[in-house]
Amino acid sequence: MYTYKRTIEMGYDETVAKVREALKNEGFGVLTEIDIKQTLKTKLNVDFEDHIILGACNPPFAYKALIAERDIGVLLPCNVSVYRQDGKTVVSAILPTVQLGKVGNPELIPIAEEIEKLLKRAVDAVAEE
Amino acid sequence: MYTYKRTIEMGYDETVAKVREALKNEGFGVLTEIDIKQTLKTKLNVDFEDHIILGACNPPFAYKALIAERDIGVLLPCNVSVYRQDGKTVVSAILPTVQLGKVGNPELIPIAEEIEKLLKRAVDAVAEE
Repeated sequence: MYTYKRTIEMGYDETVAKVREALKNEGFGVLTEIDIKQTLKTKLNVDFEDHIILGACNPPFAYKALIAERDIGVLLPCNVSVYRQDGKTVVSAILPTVQLGKVGNPELIPIAEEIEKLLKRAVDAVAEE
Repeated sequence: MYTYKRTIEMGYDETVAKVREALKNEGFGVLTEIDIKQTLKTKLNVDFEDHIILGACNPPFAYKALIAERDIGVLLPCNVSVYRQDGKTVVSAILPTVQLGKVGNPELIPIAEEIEKLLKRAVDAVAEE
């Protein structure tokens, strides 16, 4: 398991908007966005279901992580996907304890645990609305 | 080890430009960018060394990965960091075999291996220029 995910009882666009809001409420800025559906259409001319990857960053934690481990940037930001599959809307967030755990730097563990708590709370806020 | 990194005998700006070119030559588009130095200055008012994270995506491989594993978006794109540290310029690319290896889906292994070859070639092209 490498994500925390929940099925959401809302449509795609509404869920994306709620995820943005929930991330903001937990102190995350969305620094990157990849519209997978649009990218696959443009680059490969294939049709794919609605799917977006939001790159969430909590600057104080990112700063601590970069001080502890300069290469950690390649594992940032914390991605949260929102997608449609089998008629359902899903929110799937990376688990930072798994993502940063493989680095083998003990200074990163408490940072990952804190961030994971905030990310899960954001996903739950959307699912339980 | 989770990155493939090399010290580059060039300045920061020139290296960033060469990395962009090398990624393009290996079939990657840069879909996301985080200027870490600027973000930390804006959000936290701290001074940090030059540091950028480029999110590289090879659409045909990303498509295959998403078909094999819908949640894989949270582990995309392949990040390549360019940063200054101790008076040196470093290029550090994620190792997709490590990044995707933790998922436990055997269909992802050959995709990760192919992408890793291309990413390493891009980093080497910059280092050996």
